[in-house]
Formats: sequence, C-alpha cells, structure tokens
Amino acid sequence: MAQVDDTLPGEADDHFHDECGVFGIFGRQDAAAIVTLGLHALQHRGQEAAGIVSYDGSQFHVERHVGLIGDTFTKPRVIERLKGNRAIGHTRYATTGGSGLRNVQPLFAELADGGFAIAHNGNITNAMTVQRTLQKEGAIFSSTSDTETILHLVATSREKDFNARFIEAVRQLEGAFSLVALTSKKMIGCRDPLGIRPLVLGDLDGSYILASETCALDIIGARFVRDVQPGEMVIITAKGIESLFPFEPVKPRFCIFEYVYFARPDSTIEGRNVYDVRKRIGMELAIESPVDADIVVPVPDSGTPAAIGFAQQAGLPFELGIIRNHYVGRTFIQPSDSIRHMGVKLKHNANRRMIEGKRVVLVDDSIVRGTTSQKIVQMVREAGAREVHMRIASPPTRSSCFYGVDTPETAKLLASRMSIEEMADFIRVDSLGFLSIDGLYRAVGEAQRNMEQPQFCDACFSADYPTRLADFEGADNVRTLSLLASSQ
Amino acid sequence: MAQVDDTLPGEADDHFHDECGVFGIFGRQDAAAIVTLGLHALQHRGQEAAGIVSYDGSQFHVERHVGLIGDTFTKPRVIERLKGNRAIGHTRYATTGGSGLRNVQPLFAELADGGFAIAHNGNITNAMTVQRTLQKEGAIFSSTSDTETILHLVATSREKDFNARFIEAVRQLEGAFSLVALTSKKMIGCRDPLGIRPLVLGDLDGSYILASETCALDIIGARFVRDVQPGEMVIITAKGIESLFPFEPVKPRFCIFEYVYFARPDSTIEGRNVYDVRKRIGMELAIESPVDADIVVPVPDSGTPAAIGFAQQAGLPFELGIIRNHYVGRTFIQPSDSIRHMGVKLKHNANRRMIEGKRVVLVDDSIVRGTTSQKIVQMVREAGAREVHMRIASPPTRSSCFYGVDTPETAKLLASRMSIEEMADFIRVDSLGFLSIDGLYRAVGEAQRNMEQPQFCDACFSADYPTRLADFEGADNVRTLSLLASSQ
Amino acid sequence: MAQVDDTLPGEADDHFHDECGVFGIFGRQDAAAIVTLGLHALQHRGQEAAGIVSYDGSQFHVERHVGLIGDTFTKPRVIERLKGNRAIGHTRYATTGGSGLRNVQPLFAELADGGFAIAHNGNITNAMTVQRTLQKEGAIFSSTSDTETILHLVATSREKDFNARFIEAVRQLEGAFSLVALTSKKMIGCRDPLGIRPLVLGDLDGSYILASETCALDIIGARFVRDVQPGEMVIITAKGIESLFPFEPVKPRFCIFEYVYFARPDSTIEGRNVYDVRKRIGMELAIESPVDADIVVPVPDSGTPAAIGFAQQAGLPFELGIIRNHYVGRTFIQPSDSIRHMGVKLKHNANRRMIEGKRVVLVDDSIVRGTTSQKIVQMVREAGAREVHMRIASPPTRSSCFYGVDTPETAKLLASRMSIEEMADFIRVDSLGFLSIDGLYRAVGEAQRNMEQPQFCDACFSADYPTRLADFEGADNVRTLSLLASSQ
Amino acid sequence: MAQVDDTLPGEADDHFHDECGVFGIFGRQDAAAIVTLGLHALQHRGQEAAGIVSYDGSQFHVERHVGLIGDTFTKPRVIERLKGNRAIGHTRYATTGGSGLRNVQPLFAELADGGFAIAHNGNITNAMTVQRTLQKEGAIFSSTSDTETILHLVATSREKDFNARFIEAVRQLEGAFSLVALTSKKMIGCRDPLGIRPLVLGDLDGSYILASETCALDIIGARFVRDVQPGEMVIITAKGIESLFPFEPVKPRFCIFEYVYFARPDSTIEGRNVYDVRKRIGMELAIESPVDADIVVPVPDSGTPAAIGFAQQAGLPFELGIIRNHYVGRTFIQPSDSIRHMGVKLKHNANRRMIEGKRVVLVDDSIVRGTTSQKIVQMVREAGAREVHMRIASPPTRSSCFYGVDTPETAKLLASRMSIEEMADFIRVDSLGFLSIDGLYRAVGEAQRNMEQPQFCDACFSADYPTRLADFEGADNVRTLSLLASSQ
Repeated sequence: MAQVDDTLPGEADDHFHDECGVFGIFGRQDAAAIVTLGLHALQHRGQEAAGIVSYDGSQFHVERHVGLIGDTFTKPRVIERLKGNRAIGHTRYATTGGSGLRNVQPLFAELADGGFAIAHNGNITNAMTVQRTLQKEGAIFSSTSDTETILHLVATSREKDFNARFIEAVRQLEGAFSLVALTSKKMIGCRDPLGIRPLVLGDLDGSYILASETCALDIIGARFVRDVQPGEMVIITAKGIESLFPFEPVKPRFCIFEYVYFARPDSTIEGRNVYDVRKRIGMELAIESPVDADIVVPVPDSGTPAAIGFAQQAGLPFELGIIRNHYVGRTFIQPSDSIRHMGVKLKHNANRRMIEGKRVVLVDDSIVRGTTSQKIVQMVREAGAREVHMRIASPPTRSSCFYGVDTPETAKLLASRMSIEEMADFIRVDSLGFLSIDGLYRAVGEAQRNMEQPQFCDACFSADYPTRLADFEGADNVRTLSLLASSQ
Repeated sequence: MAQVDDTLPGEADDHFHDECGVFGIFGRQDAAAIVTLGLHALQHRGQEAAGIVSYDGSQFHVERHVGLIGDTFTKPRVIERLKGNRAIGHTRYATTGGSGLRNVQPLFAELADGGFAIAHNGNITNAMTVQRTLQKEGAIFSSTSDTETILHLVATSREKDFNARFIEAVRQLEGAFSLVALTSKKMIGCRDPLGIRPLVLGDLDGSYILASETCALDIIGARFVRDVQPGEMVIITAKGIESLFPFEPVKPRFCIFEYVYFARPDSTIEGRNVYDVRKRIGMELAIESPVDADIVVPVPDSGTPAAIGFAQQAGLPFELGIIRNHYVGRTFIQPSDSIRHMGVKLKHNANRRMIEGKRVVLVDDSIVRGTTSQKIVQMVREAGAREVHMRIASPPTRSSCFYGVDTPETAKLLASRMSIEEMADFIRVDSLGFLSIDGLYRAVGEAQRNMEQPQFCDACFSADYPTRLADFEGADNVRTLSLLASSQ
Repeated sequence: MAQVDDTLPGEADDHFHDECGVFGIFGRQDAAAIVTLGLHALQHRGQEAAGIVSYDGSQFHVERHVGLIGDTFTKPRVIERLKGNRAIGHTRYATTGGSGLRNVQPLFAELADGGFAIAHNGNITNAMTVQRTLQKEGAIFSSTSDTETILHLVATSREKDFNARFIEAVRQLEGAFSLVALTSKKMIGCRDPLGIRPLVLGDLDGSYILASETCALDIIGARFVRDVQPGEMVIITAKGIESLFPFEPVKPRFCIFEYVYFARPDSTIEGRNVYDVRKRIGMELAIESPVDADIVVPVPDSGTPAAIGFAQQAGLPFELGIIRNHYVGRTFIQPSDSIRHMGVKLKHNANRRMIEGKRVVLVDDSIVRGTTSQKIVQMVREAGAREVHMRIASPPTRSSCFYGVDTPETAKLLASRMSIEEMADFIRVDSLGFLSIDGLYRAVGEAQRNMEQPQFCDACFSADYPTRLADFEGADNVRTLSLLASSQ
Repeated sequence: MAQVDDTLPGEADDHFHDECGVFGIFGRQDAAAIVTLGLHALQHRGQEAAGIVSYDGSQFHVERHVGLIGDTFTKPRVIERLKGNRAIGHTRYATTGGSGLRNVQPLFAELADGGFAIAHNGNITNAMTVQRTLQKEGAIFSSTSDTETILHLVATSREKDFNARFIEAVRQLEGAFSLVALTSKKMIGCRDPLGIRPLVLGDLDGSYILASETCALDIIGARFVRDVQPGEMVIITAKGIESLFPFEPVKPRFCIFEYVYFARPDSTIEGRNVYDVRKRIGMELAIESPVDADIVVPVPDSGTPAAIGFAQQAGLPFELGIIRNHYVGRTFIQPSDSIRHMGVKLKHNANRRMIEGKRVVLVDDSIVRGTTSQKIVQMVREAGAREVHMRIASPPTRSSCFYGVDTPETAKLLASRMSIEEMADFIRVDSLGFLSIDGLYRAVGEAQRNMEQPQFCDACFSADYPTRLADFEGADNVRTLSLLASSQ
C-alpha cells in the first residue's frame, strides 16, 4: 500500500508505521468471526480501517469499515452478514486524505470466471507504471491502491487456468508483497521473492490459516505451522495445501525494522522472538554505548523491551520514569492558541519523583523527525533529571522506505541531515548513542552484516534498496490523478 | 438503471416509479450549487440517493450521498468540496438491498486520457450481455449498475478521438438512455434513438444546462431552449454547443407514462404541459366513463389533476375527501403485531364529514398491485360513502417496464390477471373505469394510437416493447453475480 | 410552550405555527405503539421533536427524540423500550437554539408518591412569574419549559390527595393549556377554562384516548366520544372516567386560527369540520371580495380548501397553477452567494402553461411577514400572469399570540404596520382582499362576532387577549437566564 | 498507566474502579481548553462520559458528552461553545443502565440568586435518605445522581449568604466527597472530613486550579501548591483564595486503594509518589512471599510497578511475559457461539518464547472475582510455564466499597468466600501470596496499621467503614425508583 498520511500530529507519534496486516482462514465455520479476532491481534499493523470478504459456497460478502476492528467488526449484524466457512481480512494504517472506503481492502472483483478478493501487505514499486499500461488498454481503476493493479493483472491475463493467471500477474510485480487471496475454490498466500514482509501459515483443528504474524494465531489458539517462504505461493483448497515457487530464486531479505518496531513483541518471525530480539538490541546497545547513570527509563511502550535489556546488561535499575496515557483519541486537536504544542504531554508524562536529581538513560526504538525526542528530553529535564543520555535501539534512519511503510520523505529524517553530534545537540541530551548496523545484525543472531549480500532489507538505515523503484524514477515520479478527492 | 426494491411497503405506495433524474451545467460559477437546486427540483424522479461530480479545471470532485438532496447536498462542507464551474448530477430512486453507495451515480473513471463522469436516466436492456463480453476481456466492474457498462465501452474503445469513442460506446447500447457526461473539456448529453426518457436543454445567462425536466430549469430561473432530440448527442464546450445524430434514425417513442405519473405537473415535455395533459386525461375519462355521483375526490396527490379535469368535465364538485399526511418517514415500520396493516392510513385519511352519505367518484392515476386501492376504497366506505366509483387516469397496466422504471414483475400487476369486472370486485367499488388507450392518446393531442407505428412507448399498457430485450431473453435471463451484498 | 424559533428561513415558511400536539391512551396493550400512530397523525402540530412516556405497572419508561415520529419512534428498539398498557405522548414544533432534548415533552418527575408525566399544548402566560416564586423556595428547574412550572406546582402542593394537588396546581395557571398527564394509577386530561386549544376524548374498544384532534383517532380506528370541555378535568383510571370542573366557569373562547390554519382539514373540532370551515371561508371571501378573473389558484397546500370554496362560489375554474415540492429538507441552506434568495422556489414553482396570459386569483390562508407572498406573486408574474389578485382566507394578523403559537413579534407582522393598500403595494398585486372578522365568524357558523363577549379567541386579529399576560407585563418582561446554551 | 477501562465484561477487566475525576480553573483565558487537558490526564478515573461548565461573565455554558475526552471535547465547535475564563469539569466511570447523559456531571442549576454548577468525586452514603426528605417537600430530581442531592440542599437552604448555604448543605452529607463547584463569582473546592478521595490545589501563572490528582497539573505545566486538606473548603475568587474548615475535625482516613490501583503512577498524593509506593509494595511482597523462580512477569499494565519492585528485591529478572493489546474497543462482542469466551485473550497474550519452561512469578495488583486471574494463569500455563506463582500487590479484597468505587457485591468477591488455599486452587497456581495489611501500610510509610485508629480507609480489605452507611441500612436499603430507564 503506497498512500499514507499522518493522522496524529508528527510530533505526537514520530515513528515509521507498517501499513497493513492480513489474515485468512479456509474451511472453518464462523470464518469471519475468526478473521475478526486475527485482525484484532494485528491491529498494531494498521488502525485506520479494515475489511473482510467471506464466501459462503455461492456468494461473496464484503464488509469494509473505518475504525478499529473492536469497534466495527464486532457488531453482530456485521459479522452475521459475512457468511461462509472461508474468509480473508485486512487492516490498514491510513488512507490518503478523503479517499475513504474505496481504498480499504480486501479488494473484490467479479472476474469472468467468478469472484476474486485480495488483501495485501507491502508496496508494489511499479504499480503506477503497470497501471498506466493497463489504462491505455481500457482498464478502469476504481481506487488509487496498488493492490488494484494486481486485480487487473489477474483479470486481463490470457492464461486459461486460474493459478497460471495469478502467477502471470505476480511475476509482473516489483517491490514487497505478502498477499492473501480468495476465490470460490481456494485461498492463496504469496510472498515476494525477497520476503520483505512477514506471512505465516497456521492450523486450527485442520483448517489452514494465513496471517502476518504469529500473535494472530495465538489469539484463536491456532498452531503455528511455518513461515510462508520468500517467493512461495501456497494454494489452499478443500483438498489441502499445495506449494509453488513461481519466481526466480533470489537471496531473501526480510525487513529488519519489523524486529525493531513493527511486529508485536510476542510474535516469532523466521524463528526469532521479537521481544527477545529487542532485549538483545538493548544489551548490544549497553555494550556499544555504555553510560554512567542512575536509572534506565524507556520511552513507553516501544522502547520498553530494549530498556529492559539495556538495564540488565548495564546492571542499572529499570524504572518507569515516563508514564503513558493510553486514552489519546485519534482527533486530539490542539484546543486553542494559548495552549498549543501540548505535543508529547497528551501521551507521556515524566514521573517527577523517580527522575528528580537522577542521571537518566532514556531508551527509545528510533528517531524519525526528532521532534518527539526533543520534547521528551525537555520534559524529563523539567522533571529534574540531572543528566539525560539517549540511547536508540536502531541505527540512524536516513532513507525512506518504499515497501509498505509510512515514512516521511528523506529530507525530513533527522539523521539524513545531521551528524550524531548535531542530533544530540538538537534534542539537547548529554549524550546520544545509536546501535550500530552490525550491532543490530548481532541482535538478530548474525555475526555481522554481509556487505555484499545483506541478509536483511535495511534500506532505511543503508539506502541499499533490494529492488528497482520503477514508479519513483525519472518522469514517472509524478503521479497525476484527475480525481482529487471523493467522500466515497 | 435496472435494480430497485420497495423501500416503502408496497401497499403504502403502489406506483410505478421513474428511477432517475439527471442535471448538468457547463461554465458557470458555483456549478455544483446550481446542480444541487436542479436535482432538488427533480427529486420526484428519485429520492434514495444522489451524486454530483464537478471539475475545477485541474481536478474532478465527487460526492455521493444517500438521502434527499435537501438533507445532504445543502451542507456547506459538501458543496464547498465540489469546486469548479461545470458539474453534473444524478438523483436515483432506489438501490438493491445493501449495495449502498457503489451504485449511486454519476459514475467516475480515470481513463487513459483523463477523468470521465456519467449519469444516466433509463435502462440499458443489453447491459449484462455487453458486460459479460467485457469481463471476458479482463474488465473489472465495481458496481452492478448498467451505467458502468457505458463507462467500460468508452474506456475500451480503440477510437482516437473522445467523441468517436463515446459514439462507438452508445451505438452498442439498447434500451432507454438519457445521458449526461462530463470530461475535463466538455459536457455531453445524449438521448437514445427512441427518446424514451426526457432530456431538455436550458440556458442560464449563457451557460448551457441539461436536465431531465423543465421544472429543474424553472427553479434556477434558466431559460428553456429545446428538448434534446431522440437520437441526438449534444456536445457542450467552452466554444459553444455542437449537435450530432450518431444513430440510425427511427421514429421516436417517448414514454407516455411520463405524462400519466412520472413527470412533475409543472414540467413541459415535447411541447405538452404535464398538468394540462393530466387534466385532459380526467376530462377524457369523464367522457368515456361518466358516473352519476355527488362529488369527485382525488387520491392525493397523484390523482389530483385528473380529478380536477374530471370534475370540470362532469360538472361535479371537486372536493378534498382524502387528506394526505406528508410527514411519512422512509422507515415507518409497523410497530407491533396488534396494530399491523396500518397501510394507507399512515399516509391518507378520509375526511368523514365530506364523504358521509355521498356518492363518491375516486380518481387515481393508475392501479399497480391493487392493494392500496383496496384499502383506500375501504377507508372511504368506512367514512360513510354511499357509493364508491373508481376512475383510473390510464389504461390497465399489464406489463413490466424495462426502460428505467421500477415495476413489479408482470404477475403481480393486478390488470395482468384480472378483468376489469374482477378488479372492481377485488377493490370493492360500485364501478371501475380505466381510460382507454385511445383516450390517453387523445389527451396528449393525438387523434388515436397508430397501431402500426405507435407514437409513444406504451409497453406497460400494450406489451409492445420498442426495443430488443437482450438481457431478459432465454438463458441470459438469469443474472448470476458472485457478490451478493456489500455495505460498501 | 413558550419558546420557538424559525427553523426554516422566514420567507420559505411564513406562517404562524401551532407548537404542540398531545395524545394519550389508557389500558390498551401496545399503548406506546398506538401513541406513536396518534402523534404521527398530529405531526402537523409540531415536527421538531417528540416524546412518549409509558407505564408498565411498576416502572415508567421515557423516550424523547429529535425528528419526525416516522423516523424516530418507529424503530422497533424504541417502541420495545416503551413497555406498558398506558402511555402519553407529545410532538413539538421547535426548541430554542441549542437547548436540545431538555425541553422535549412529556416531562417526567419522581414525586414523593411516585412518577408523574405531563404533556402540554398551549402556553402558560404566568409561568416565569410562578417559576421565580418557586425558585426562591429552592426549586430547581431543569428546563426552560413552562410545562416544568406545572410539574413543580404539583410537587410542592401540600394537598394530600393527588387530584387535589393537581387541581391546586392548574388553578394557579394563566393562559392556554390542554394537558395530558400520567401517574401510576391514572391518566388526566385538562383544558384551560377558556378552552383555547383543542382536546378530544376517544375510545378504542373500551380504552380511553385523549388527543389534540380527531384525525389522531381516525388513524387508529378509534371512536370520537366528545370534546373535553373548556375548564374540564377528566380522570381516567382502571375503573372508568370521572369529570371535574375545577375552575371558575367563564365563557369559552376557542382559538379561531385553529380553523384557519393549524388543525388538519380532516379533523372535526367542537362540531365543525375543518375542511368544511375553510371552504366556507373561501366562499365568504368570494362574496366579500369578488374578482373578475380567469382562474383561482391556491398557494399550496394551506390555501387549497379556501381556493376550492372561492372557485365554487365565484364560478371560476380551480387550477393547480403553483406546484409544491414536498421534498424540502429541514436544512436547505442557501448554497452560495451567487444563488442566494431562492426563497419560495425551493418549495413552490409556478405552472407557467396554466398561468400565462391569465388573470389569476391567488388564495392563501394568511399573511405574516409578507415576504413569501411577495415572492410568490413575483413568481406568478414571471410565469406570465396578466393580473394577480390575492385573496387571504383570514383577517389581517396584527398581533402576536401568547397561547402556544409561534408568531413573530408584532412589529414584524406586515398588517401591524401597513394598510391593506400598502400591503397590496408591498406584495405587488393588482388587488388584495382579506376576509372580514365577521366573515370569518360567519364561516364558523356564527351570525357575527359578539363584540362584548367574543365567541372565540381572535387576539391575533383583534389584540383582544382573553387572559392576563403576567410574564409579558412591565419589568417581568425580560427573562434573564444564566444558562445560555447547553448541548444537553 | 495502572487503570483500565471496564468496558469489557467483568472477566476481561476484573478490577475495582474509581468513578470520577474533577478539575477546575479560575481566572484564565481558554479555561475550558485547560479543563479539557486536565480531564484527559484524569481519564483513568472515568472513561464513560465527561462534562464541562464554563462561565463567561454573564452566562454559563454546559457541554456533556459520552465517550473519551480526546474524542469529544477536542472538537473545536465544542470548545468554542465553552466560553469564559473559569470552568469546572468532570469525567465519570459509568452511568447506570440507559440513563444516559442525565447523570453526567457537572450538574447545573439555576438557583434564585444565579447559576450553580457542581462536580463530585466520591459517594454520598446518605443521599437517598436526604433525597426522600427533599422530595416530600416538593423537590423534583432530574437525575439519579447523589450529586443532585447536594444541589437541592444548597437550593433549599434558608441561609442568606452563598457560602453559608453551601456549608449548610455539605454538613448534611455523609460519605466521601471531593467537590468542585462554580458560581458566577467563585470556584469552591471541598473535601469530606475524612479526606477519602484526593483533591489537590495547583497554580498556573497565578490562576488557581483544583484537580483530583497532580498528573492533571503536570499536563498543563501547572505548579502543585498543596493537597486540599480533609474537611477543608477552599473558596477561590478574583481576590484570591480563602480556606474554611466547616466540619467537626476528625482523624483523616484517605483511601489506601488509591495507591494500590486507582491513581496514576506519576501522581503524588499526600506526599507519596504512587509509582514509588507500588514499587515498595512489590518489595514488601517479595519479602513476605518469596519464591524460587526464574522470571518475574507483570500482568500489564496495572501489575507492572509492583513487579519491578518484586524483581529488584528478589534479584530476579523482570520480563514482559504477557503482552497487552491496547486496541480493545468498547464493544468487543463475542462474535459467535463457536468462539465464545475469548476472555483475556482480546487484551493479553502470553509471550510463549519468554515463558516456555520457566518458573514464573506473576504479579497483579488485586483479585476481585478471580475469573481473569484464572484465565491468565491458564494462558501462561499453555504457553509452557513450568511453575506459576501468583503474587498480589494488596491484601485480599473482601468487602464492597461505598465511597465512589465500582465494586461487585461482597458475595462476588473471591476473597469473601474462599481461603487463600482455595483461591490458589481456584486459579490453579502453584502458590499464591497476598500482601499483608501491615505490609501495605509499611509500603506507604507507616510502621503498621493502627488498629484503634486506622490511618487510612481500608474497608475493602477490613470491612472497617469509617462512616455511617445510612442508605444501605435497614429498610432504606431498597431504592425504589419509578423511572426505570430513559434514553435521555
């Protein structure tokens, strides 16, 4: 998914954001109810809107709603409409201004041989390029989503067999894609050859499940079977599961930032527990950037596991020196000029009594624009900290992501225009330390980054993009859409 | 538009319903505000939902809302979003269960050479047939509307010039269509060769207007220029208006039921004032079916003009013997078992003091299922009428309409299964008279119906359909859609 | 009810408005469903909001909703909450800006001896005066409604017996009141000694009904028993009905404007059918103010019965020369500066073909501010009328009403500051005629107005107010409320 | 954040809940915007609804909304309506079934000498008793809130001076009350003689603030001045602050459970930092109930501070073995029979990799019904824990609270009907330990509980209620309200 916007003011939530989670189940009564629970467990991958498509043996049913799963899909009348024993769902981070439900997935189309629904986590980096070609042939796009490009590629394929049509379509795609698709006969899962985004296979009493993360298996008590492999296409039918590898084999490069921030700490991806990786990151950080301090304080909640690791490694007390207010609504507008710039205080408050007179190590997962860090440091100082040392559980983020992550343009990334010393000065800390790229690789269990053939996609740190970026090169760069906005 | 349902219980509103009104203006500041007013004047042609597309010189803007124009499009924030000096709009009668806003027009598509919006009054009788062909070539339909078929025909045309593509598209259509379309450069109006539905051309201080009826010109103080001709395509650009006749010429057959019921009484269509025609209908009826009675009472509001004509011709007093309650909401659910079947009483009440002891001529425009007539007669009898004579301002409606009118299937039409005597018995009147088909032709100013080449489409009375009905013949009859329902 | 505002721009609906309708039933299964239907039939007496209180033998249930009965109370979950076999309801015209549901009736209070609900049509002219006295004794008012004053008077009465407390309360009231009240044991109806507002008693299979008008009996098939008498209090219990006359007897003075405009034409009040009175008004008008003209055209819908009467008396054809659009929403905001002042065109359109070249008699029920009349005349002239003669079915309205009717302040009434000639000039008609006050009395069956002891309240024509106006005299005139506005 | 919403069925959030937070500011531009921020910081004290009353020098303005502050009061049009430089606000936990906005505070009344608004945290234990007396004198109650009783006591006081009337009123109250009130001239804060609920005084650039907790001062950058004293009444006017002690002096007994669970960890109450107390609780618990285990795991978020203290004291690693999903919506209905009883899994997931094969100490703040504990233990066992030892950061909760806390009836409290061994068995742990009452007193800095004169209210642990419970004794016990339910 390519389009995003900032629904919270940048300073209040200064993170990269993964944009989607996908979930599907085949051959289980109340399939849509199970998808609802799975999407709820994947809510951290997208809070803006969600959709579910089910198939009841003769008809497809589609529901799309803006808002949290727990507020929309749990209404009995919504679930009841989603009849059938197979269903796929999608939760998304954000839609472009005003475009509303049109871009909410799964997308559905009535093809010549029946209905076809598809949900996508990732971003197709040549979607616009392909779309323009399709439009010249008369294709009509009803959304601005890159996912619709996949739909049209399947629809216009001249292959006879459905699997062949699907394969012809995905072979034309570049970028990151973990797909879940549903037809009247089968559920398909497919991961791009690099396996940039996660996708796992689960089993609930004999019914197959596809999900972005293992935490979505846990919530329904399903068994984790295995990761879908990079470049793999799994086809699940009433007869069982089939596995194809339709792409040229390449060395996989999973997104290392999933470990740093995107994935839920209780998920296990490609054999590594996310919480455990984050603790190790904190430990590496304590080794690489030790501080003589009194307490280790996480910026909650994302900095907490690394702070625990840092404190254990450094032998310093771990303390909740910043308290998070979880009741921040989506639309907390600054209520008046005289009290603007509440910024982080809506979400965080320094626990003055814990901090006063202390030398504090603040641990956060990353620095994006730097504005939030600046305000948190100021808040901690005003609460009486004697020294403030910031430790960041990742290398400096210097480059935008084009693989389904909401990142500011490169120029807005603090690390793209400042040295570490300048950044320390900007956020006004006594010292600032980032984890090294090799430290990050060590935390995930590698000896170091293989500079020739990196084991992960780490483009946001290294600008080393593992694919072509067709839509973003040269004149193709500018997208001109006639349709500016639509409430529908 | 082919799909409809009964939003009010059949007995409470037992009429045929025209399903759409269209309106467009080109080259006038606040174009969308003017379209809003025009659609408000056309609200009787469709109360379910409406849409407007405007173009501001660089972008198209789309708004679609369920509900009355006066409740939705008059909100300042809605109108403000519809920037630009050209806009087209559409109001529709009803959508099939649950399909929501997807089918609300105008439809919009981003074609290879720019945006294209289209609004349609009528029904394409070969839409499914064409759609299946297009789907086989990979077209993806995002609605179940016949209008989308036109969109795809334009999109997939290989002609270079836009007008040529539009012409290639409409030449493939069968049925009734009065279209208004908008591109970044022009507004197009087009009426099918038979001219089944109305479409007029107006002028507001030099800006051209297209509208379903003249009453939509009156509300904005625009000048009536002329009817768009059957088979005519008018192209309005900044340079002026151009007229083409892209179809094989045939003898026109305007829908005579527009005069009987659909059009607003203050509209003038093809030179005839609707109220005046209805009064003449009442006069013809009084001549054909005289009654010895005390008072003439209309079934309000649709029977009123004919009742006035009847009373004048018969020399009987015209009296409001039935009072209509205009506050009936859309969702008046029968509140409990013990008081079900309120039926017509929610909308109509007999004025007992006017009726008691009288011989009453009741005048209504048509009988569809007969259930409402039955209840109104019963109500009038309970109010003390000595005799009840029903006179109907049209011939018996025996056949369904396939040209953009909501009609029950033929078997549910009372006149399709009963003689006039049986109908009189069924609705329990002392006498029942329908206008003859020739009487109706006389009321519109013809000497009689030309049996060889009827001057109008009167298929609902005669079953003489002026076009092929491709979608409704043979195996094509059954439409199988995978997508049953969608809240979006 | 004292507070009102203009919810539609004055020019679009320039009428006096009755502000309330009341309805109650005692001892009938599904009581609330029946009240819903009754209020629907009384919707013309108030469209802004409605409320119902029911009692199920152990608990009272209250529902209040803004909007039309048919849109709010017909929802199954609303009706289901209103359990019990007795219920009273109220529909109201308008609430003061922003005060929302607090002022919607029936009001309910938990008194020392049980629940008490009350609904009121009329206006207590000493409500503020009484309220200030009560507040000094510590009473807390939770609404700005005069009805709450009645509630407090009942609550603070020192009488032992409930009926005695109710009587003590109503004896302190001045002004117009037709009340329906409910306790756990009884339903009470009460009409002020002058009987200014209507209240009728009905019977549905042995269950007593109280309603503002007979049309509310018709809709449920109830039998009209009799009018509640001016100054009468009826007490309905499981044992039957009891009648008391707790006030000093005075000569009744029913509101004559109920016949002119407020009541529904199919209602019968104090023995007179409203439609019949209106036709007679038209006849009297034709006698008093004859015109040499071609057609008689009503300003729909309120001018229609008088126009029929006028046409019959004058021997002129009655024609629908103005067509009304019934789809006007509540919030039809003028969409932009360039097309402001649509005024009457949103609601009315001249039927040009009927009017062109004709000498037209326009018949309307009354002139309030005159702005609507002005625009309608202009519209009729622009449609080509050769002459326009306005005939008004009532005397000039020169004074505000203080008895539960929404009227502009006196200074805004056209007739309060212009002679008939000046008014004719202002609205630009060739001639203007009002019915004389004696003509109006003749239409309701009196020989003439008794100048000593007028038979009706006609204060809006005569400024002859039948009661003291305590709240509006001297310094008491200005009400100062601390609470400006509340969304709740 | 220790507090969670009780929007889920009891088993998913099995806690006591404080029911209200209050906040007021006097003499500061944009007062309502500041109150909005203050209430946002107090959101943990009540998530159901909130209200603000402001005074602009001539008028009071009231807004009440159901939902989170950040979703309702941050809308510009809401804040703009709340004009004035003084305002008070209230956030509440829950309203009784169906009673909607009527019970949302602040309550406002128009008294004889002007407007009066009041917001209340606590519970008046003789409110019904007083209410019945007032009703006998004719008072009409428009809510079922005990706060309205205070309003009526002030309104009916015969004292001349407002302060005297307020004092006469509060002297009649029994129970817990921390009040903030506003008149046109002053803001009043008042705490019951025992000081059961907190109330603090702050200062923002010279404007006085009253707030339930210090965290509400922090968010706006206000200075903490002091706690309002038990039994103190502070009167803030344009001239400054005045302090009165209108009650008989008694030994204070602050609610000790505020430290255990209700207050925010970053607040400081009566000199003690809440997070610090909770860590000490964990330390005392580790001393009193040591375990031979591998890791200490909090039940997030409320068990976290105590778990940190436990781990530090015990020298065991603190690990996030349970991950909390913060996206649980208000209405997460169990979507179907086949997957009912998701219970805690909607909110919590065991982090299997951290737990597998380990001996786990689970730390939670309290056990109420025990159902959640049971499910969390089961989840931790299914994740592979070798041993599960539960340590509870408070003594067993055996008695209901009558001082403004939502507690189940005594019989539903697990500790009221089981011994610790039975409870351990019920929740299926290898061992279960509660903190002793003296341990809890040590954690707050006392040597031990003074059995003669306890320093705190600890009735939920000891059944030693510090006040009379008039409404809950004898025949008064049963409240009989006629009004069952109201949507308004």
